[in-house]
Amino acid sequence: MIIIARTALPGPELDGIREFVERHGLRTHVSHGTDRTVIGCVGDARAIDPHAVRALPGVEEVIPVRKPYRLASREFVAGRTVIPLGDRRGTLIGGPQLVVAAGPCSVEGRAMLLETATAVRASGARMLRGGAFKPRTSPWVFQGLGVEALELLAEARAATGLPVVTEVMDPRQVELVAAHADVLQIGARNMQNYALLAEVGRVRRPVLLKRGLSATVSELLLAAEHVMAQGNRDVILCERGIRTFETATRNTLDVGAVAVLKLETHLPVIVDPSHAAGRADLVAPLAFAAVAAGADGLIVEVHPRPSEARSDGDQSLTPAVFDDLMRALAPFAAAAGRTLDDEAPREPRARVA
Amino acid sequence: MIIIARTALPGPELDGIREFVERHGLRTHVSHGTDRTVIGCVGDARAIDPHAVRALPGVEEVIPVRKPYRLASREFVAGRTVIPLGDRRGTLIGGPQLVVAAGPCSVEGRAMLLETATAVRASGARMLRGGAFKPRTSPWVFQGLGVEALELLAEARAATGLPVVTEVMDPRQVELVAAHADVLQIGARNMQNYALLAEVGRVRRPVLLKRGLSATVSELLLAAEHVMAQGNRDVILCERGIRTFETATRNTLDVGAVAVLKLETHLPVIVDPSHAAGRADLVAPLAFAAVAAGADGLIVEVHPRPSEARSDGDQSLTPAVFDDLMRALAPFAAAAGRTLDDEAPREPRARVA
Amino acid sequence: MIIIARTALPGPELDGIREFVERHGLRTHVSHGTDRTVIGCVGDARAIDPHAVRALPGVEEVIPVRKPYRLASREFVAGRTVIPLGDRRGTLIGGPQLVVAAGPCSVEGRAMLLETATAVRASGARMLRGGAFKPRTSPWVFQGLGVEALELLAEARAATGLPVVTEVMDPRQVELVAAHADVLQIGARNMQNYALLAEVGRVRRPVLLKRGLSATVSELLLAAEHVMAQGNRDVILCERGIRTFETATRNTLDVGAVAVLKLETHLPVIVDPSHAAGRADLVAPLAFAAVAAGADGLIVEVHPRPSEARSDGDQSLTPAVFDDLMRALAPFAAAAGRTLDDEAPREPRARVA
Amino acid sequence: MIIIARTALPGPELDGIREFVERHGLRTHVSHGTDRTVIGCVGDARAIDPHAVRALPGVEEVIPVRKPYRLASREFVAGRTVIPLGDRRGTLIGGPQLVVAAGPCSVEGRAMLLETATAVRASGARMLRGGAFKPRTSPWVFQGLGVEALELLAEARAATGLPVVTEVMDPRQVELVAAHADVLQIGARNMQNYALLAEVGRVRRPVLLKRGLSATVSELLLAAEHVMAQGNRDVILCERGIRTFETATRNTLDVGAVAVLKLETHLPVIVDPSHAAGRADLVAPLAFAAVAAGADGLIVEVHPRPSEARSDGDQSLTPAVFDDLMRALAPFAAAAGRTLDDEAPREPRARVA
Repeated sequence: MIIIARTALPGPELDGIREFVERHGLRTHVSHGTDRTVIGCVGDARAIDPHAVRALPGVEEVIPVRKPYRLASREFVAGRTVIPLGDRRGTLIGGPQLVVAAGPCSVEGRAMLLETATAVRASGARMLRGGAFKPRTSPWVFQGLGVEALELLAEARAATGLPVVTEVMDPRQVELVAAHADVLQIGARNMQNYALLAEVGRVRRPVLLKRGLSATVSELLLAAEHVMAQGNRDVILCERGIRTFETATRNTLDVGAVAVLKLETHLPVIVDPSHAAGRADLVAPLAFAAVAAGADGLIVEVHPRPSEARSDGDQSLTPAVFDDLMRALAPFAAAAGRTLDDEAPREPRARVA
Repeated sequence: MIIIARTALPGPELDGIREFVERHGLRTHVSHGTDRTVIGCVGDARAIDPHAVRALPGVEEVIPVRKPYRLASREFVAGRTVIPLGDRRGTLIGGPQLVVAAGPCSVEGRAMLLETATAVRASGARMLRGGAFKPRTSPWVFQGLGVEALELLAEARAATGLPVVTEVMDPRQVELVAAHADVLQIGARNMQNYALLAEVGRVRRPVLLKRGLSATVSELLLAAEHVMAQGNRDVILCERGIRTFETATRNTLDVGAVAVLKLETHLPVIVDPSHAAGRADLVAPLAFAAVAAGADGLIVEVHPRPSEARSDGDQSLTPAVFDDLMRALAPFAAAAGRTLDDEAPREPRARVA
Repeated sequence: MIIIARTALPGPELDGIREFVERHGLRTHVSHGTDRTVIGCVGDARAIDPHAVRALPGVEEVIPVRKPYRLASREFVAGRTVIPLGDRRGTLIGGPQLVVAAGPCSVEGRAMLLETATAVRASGARMLRGGAFKPRTSPWVFQGLGVEALELLAEARAATGLPVVTEVMDPRQVELVAAHADVLQIGARNMQNYALLAEVGRVRRPVLLKRGLSATVSELLLAAEHVMAQGNRDVILCERGIRTFETATRNTLDVGAVAVLKLETHLPVIVDPSHAAGRADLVAPLAFAAVAAGADGLIVEVHPRPSEARSDGDQSLTPAVFDDLMRALAPFAAAAGRTLDDEAPREPRARVA
Repeated sequence: MIIIARTALPGPELDGIREFVERHGLRTHVSHGTDRTVIGCVGDARAIDPHAVRALPGVEEVIPVRKPYRLASREFVAGRTVIPLGDRRGTLIGGPQLVVAAGPCSVEGRAMLLETATAVRASGARMLRGGAFKPRTSPWVFQGLGVEALELLAEARAATGLPVVTEVMDPRQVELVAAHADVLQIGARNMQNYALLAEVGRVRRPVLLKRGLSATVSELLLAAEHVMAQGNRDVILCERGIRTFETATRNTLDVGAVAVLKLETHLPVIVDPSHAAGRADLVAPLAFAAVAAGADGLIVEVHPRPSEARSDGDQSLTPAVFDDLMRALAPFAAAAGRTLDDEAPREPRARVA
C-alpha cells in the first residue's frame, strides 16, 4: 500500500499516518517530495481498510499495490484451470477445445427443447443452455417454467449426452438446481449477490459466473473469489457485454476484458455474444471476435422459431443459422489455436492446481 | 406498441406482422411511408413480448408506447405515497418533512452505535442507519456483525426513539431482519435480485430500494414493481450515484433521476450523498443538491472516528461535521418547501392510495 | 511519480528503471515489498512521460503524484478568480453574485432576440446567450445565422445592457466573434479542439469552456490550461451534463463535478441545466441543484415560442416559465450564500491573482 | 416521424399537433389507443426539428423513422466504397485486402521514422502512420514536430513506397497536410469539430475519421456526413475504443460497432487496437478480434524503442513484436475472407458509387 500525503514536511500529520500504519503491523518507508510525501507500507496491507486510511488527516490518496483477489489470480495458480463438464469427461473447458454452449433462452416446453438440443448437438455444441428460472426486469412477464424446466433439461441431457447449464437465482434453490444441472449459472444481475455466491461455492458443480452490466474486470474476479472462498474452485467467467452509452447493440461486448482476464486469471473465460448483440444478425461477428480475443468458449441462444420465443426472440438464432455460425467459426478457432472437435484432447490433461 | 417495418409496400412480410399482432388480440393501424411502414397496435400490448416481434421478418423496430411499470406509476396512484416510519407516527416520508437517516456504515459495537445514534438524533436525524450484514466486494474483509448488530440496532432504537433501517441481503434472513428493523434496505448490488425483492414484498415493513450502479430510472421502478407486485406498496426509492467514466467522485450523483422520479412515480425518493461522493468533504454539497432537486430525504454515513471505521471511513462524517451539515441544510430544505422539523405535520395526513 | 515494479528482488529490471529515472534528473527511493517494489521518484516528474516509463521492462504501474494542471490549480492561485463580464463592471462572475445567462439556443431573427433579451433581463438574467454559429450533429439542419446573428447580438446588448456570450467554432473566426461578443463560448464538442483553445487563449475576452460529453474533471481543467497557457486567464468552466447509459435525461448532470471543481480550481464554475435536462420541465430542479452544489452561475435556454425554435425547442423555457424559475431560485441562492442582485458587490472586489 | 400524444381523446392538443405537422407539408395518420394517441407522419420529416415537436402541448415522445444520415447510408450506396490509398493503386481499402497501417505515435526524428517505416513495410504494413501535429491533453508536453515531421513522412514514403496517414487538427493546416500526406486523419477529439470536417471535405484526399470517445455509431456516421456533404466521399471510419467505466484497458474496444457499421454503411471501417488497449501486450488480441468482427484494416502504433517514445510508449509495439502480430494475423484474416497480400486484387475493382 502506498499513501500520498499532502505535505512535504515532517509534522504531526505524517507522524499520525505512520503510527496508524505501524500499529497495524506494517513497516513504512518515507520519501519527501517537493510538495508531497510518499509513504510506502511494507507487509500484508490487506489488514488495513484503505477507506479508513483515507480518513486520516493529511492523506491525499491511498494506492493498493496488490491485486485484491487471491485465489483467482495467476499468482495463486500459475497455469490454467481446466474444468470437466458433466459426466462426459471428453468435454473440458479452459484447454485447447473451444466449448460452445447453445440452446433456448427459456425452456418453453418438451418438444422445443429436445428439437433445439438435438439440432445444436449436431452442429457441434458441447453443452446445452436453457433457462428454468428467468430473471425478468418486469414482474408482469413470463418468469420461466421452474422445476418443470429442470426436469426437461435433465431429459434433454439424457437424450443428447450434452451437459446442461441453467441459471440459479435463489440461494434456497441451489441444491435443487444442482441436482438437475451440470453447471450452475449466476446471471449478470446477481454477480454481486453474495448470499447466492456463497451457496454455489458450497456445492460440487462448476459455476458459470456472468459479468455484471457495470462490473469491472477486478470486481468480476472478486465475485469469483466469493465462490472460491467457500471451496468451489471451478468457476467459469463469462463476458456478456457491458452497459455503455451506445444503443446500437444491446450491450457493448468488451473483448478487451477477455484479453485482460486471460492474463490476470487462470480461470476459463467464455463469451455470450447473444446478450451483447441483442440482435440475431450481429451474433456471428461478435462470436468470431470473442474467439479471436482468446475466449475458451461461447454461450449462444438458439430457438427453433424465434418469433414465438417467450423471451429474447430477437437475439436467438434458428438452428440453421447456428449451424452456419459453427461452420464459419471453425477457421477462427483454428487461427486461435483451438479446436471445436471434442475428440482432440484424447488424454484428458491433468487439472491445473 | 408501434412496429416499424422495413418496407413501404404491402406484401407477405407486412401481412405476417399484422397477423401476428392480431392473433394476440390487438388491432392494427397501418400507415405506409415513403420507404417504411408504421403499424400502430391498439390494445393491451403487454401480452406480446417486443423481443419476439423484433424476430419477425421485415421488422426494423418495435417501440412500446406504455411505460412497463404499473403499480409504481403516477397513472396508478395520482398523488404521493407517504410512508410512516417505525412506531412513531410523527415521522412520515414522502410528505413535507425532509427525513434524514444517519449512522455508521457498519454497526461495529455497542458503544460506537449508541454514541452515533444519540449524536445524530440531537442534530435532527429522524432515522438511524447501520449495517449488520455488509455486502463487500472482497470476501477477505469485514462482512458485518450480523445478528449481534441487529440486536444493537434495536437497542439503539429503544434508547433514542429513532426508527432503524438496515440492509437485508439474503431472502432467508428477511424475517429475521424485519423482526429487528423498521425499514428493510435493499442494496444497489441487489436491486435486481428478484428472489430477495419478492421476499421483502411479502412482509409488512417499508423497503428502502437503492438504485443499482448501472440501473436506469425505468429499471429502478420495475424493481420497485417486483416488490409491490407481492403486496408491499411501501417502497422508498434511493438514488446513490451511478457508475460512469468519471473517477473524481466514487459515483456520479444523478440529480436528474431524482427530478424524473418525482414526475414518474408516487413513491418517495431519497438520496445517499455519502456513497455518491465517496469523500467526506463532498457530502454536504451533494446533500444540498439532492434536496434542491426534490428529494424527500437523505441517508448519510456518520462515524465517531472515521479512521477507525471498518468500512467507508473516508466518506463518513464525524458527528460534529454532520451537525454542521444539518444546520446548513435547513435553508435549502425551506427553499424546496420542506421542513426538517418532525413536529410540523401534526395531523398525520392520510396515506395516499 | 511512483513506479511499481513487478518484482521484490534487486536485479537488472530494477536497475534499468532506476537508471532511466535518474537519467531524467530525478532521485529515487526504493522500498522492497513482499512481491513488488515501490520506487518513489523525487523531482519534477513532468519531464518524464509516464507512458514511456510503463514501456520499461518490469514496470507494472506508474502513478503520477502531482496534478497535471498548473495554472488552473489552487496551488497556483489560492483564492478565487473573479471575472468581470462586459463593460458593466457591476457583473462579476466567481464572486458572491450568482450570474444567470439566458437566451435562445440560436439567434433566429431580430424580433425574437430582442423580445427574449428584454424578457430575461426583466427576470434577472445578467448575461444574454444566443448561438450564431451552431454545431449541429447533422449537416442537413439549420447551422445558425452566422455573422448576421453576431450583429443582432450586439444590437441586443446595446438595447438591454446585457453582456453577450456566443459560441465560436472555428479558429479563423475568433477575432470576428470577439469583436461582437463579451464572452467566447467553447462548446462541449470542441473542448479538446486545441487549435481553437490556443486561439481564444490569445484574445482579451473571457472564455466560457463547456465540459465535453465524456471529459473527466481533470481533462476539463487541462483544456482550461490550454487556454491559460496562451495568456488568457479568464476561463469560466461549465458543467452541462455528461454522457452515461441513462436516457431519461438528455445528459446526466454531474453536480459532484461542480463540488470537486470548487475544491480543485480557482476558476468560476457555472452549470447549463438546459442541455443536461433536455426537457423544459426538468430545467428548474437541475438549476436549483446546481446552485445548491456551489455553482457560480447558470446558463439557460429561453425561447418566446419553443415549438417554433429552430433548435432545442424541447428544452427551452418560455419567458414566463423562466421568470418563475428566477423567483424560485432566489431562496436557493440565498441558502448557498449567493445573491441574484447585481447591486450587491458595490465595490468591485480586486481580481484575484 | 411518429408522434406519441399523452391523450387518447380528440381535442385541441391533438388538433394542434396535426396542424403543426401538416403545416410542414406532411400527412398524418392517427390511431387512438387506450390512453395514448399515435400520430404517424408521412412525407419528408427532415423538414421538421423533432426537438420543436416535443415542445408542442400534449406531445409525449417523437420517434424519427428514418436514419439521420443519407450519403453514408446503405440506402444511398448499396455496395461497398473501395478507396485507393496513395499513388500505388494496388492498395485499396474496403475490398478483400486487409490494410494494416503502422508507425510511430509521433514522428520524433528522421532516423527513427525511416527505421520504423522500413521495418513495418517488411512485415506487411501497407500504410505508414506518424503524428506531426499531436493533440495532447496537457499543454505542457511534446506537441509534435509539425511541418518538419510532414517532410520526414514524405521522405519515408519516397523511401518505402508506403502511403502516409497523419492527423490534421486545424482547418488552416488542411492544405499543408494534404500536400504531404496521402490520407488525412481526424482524431477522436475532433470528430465533431465541424469547421475541420468541412475543410477536409473540400480536398481530394481520403479522410480517416476516428470515432469520438463517447460518440455513438450514428454520430460517427453523421460526422462522416459532414465531410461527404462537402464533396469528399472517401471517408474511412475508425473504431478506437470508447470511454466506459472500465479502466483495465485504456478504452473499451467496441467490436459490436464494427459489425453494426458493416451493416449500416458502405464506407470502409478500420480499427485502432493500440489506443483501445493502451498496453502493448493487449494489442494483438484486440487486433485479431477487430479483423474477426469484419474490420477492413488496422492502424497500429510501432516504435523502435518504446521506452524512449515521446508519446504512447506503453502501447507501442517494437518492430519485432509487430512482425509476430502480422504473422499471427494472417489466419484470422483468411478466416474473415481477407488477404494481407496486396498483390491479390490484381484488377483493381471499379470504385463503388
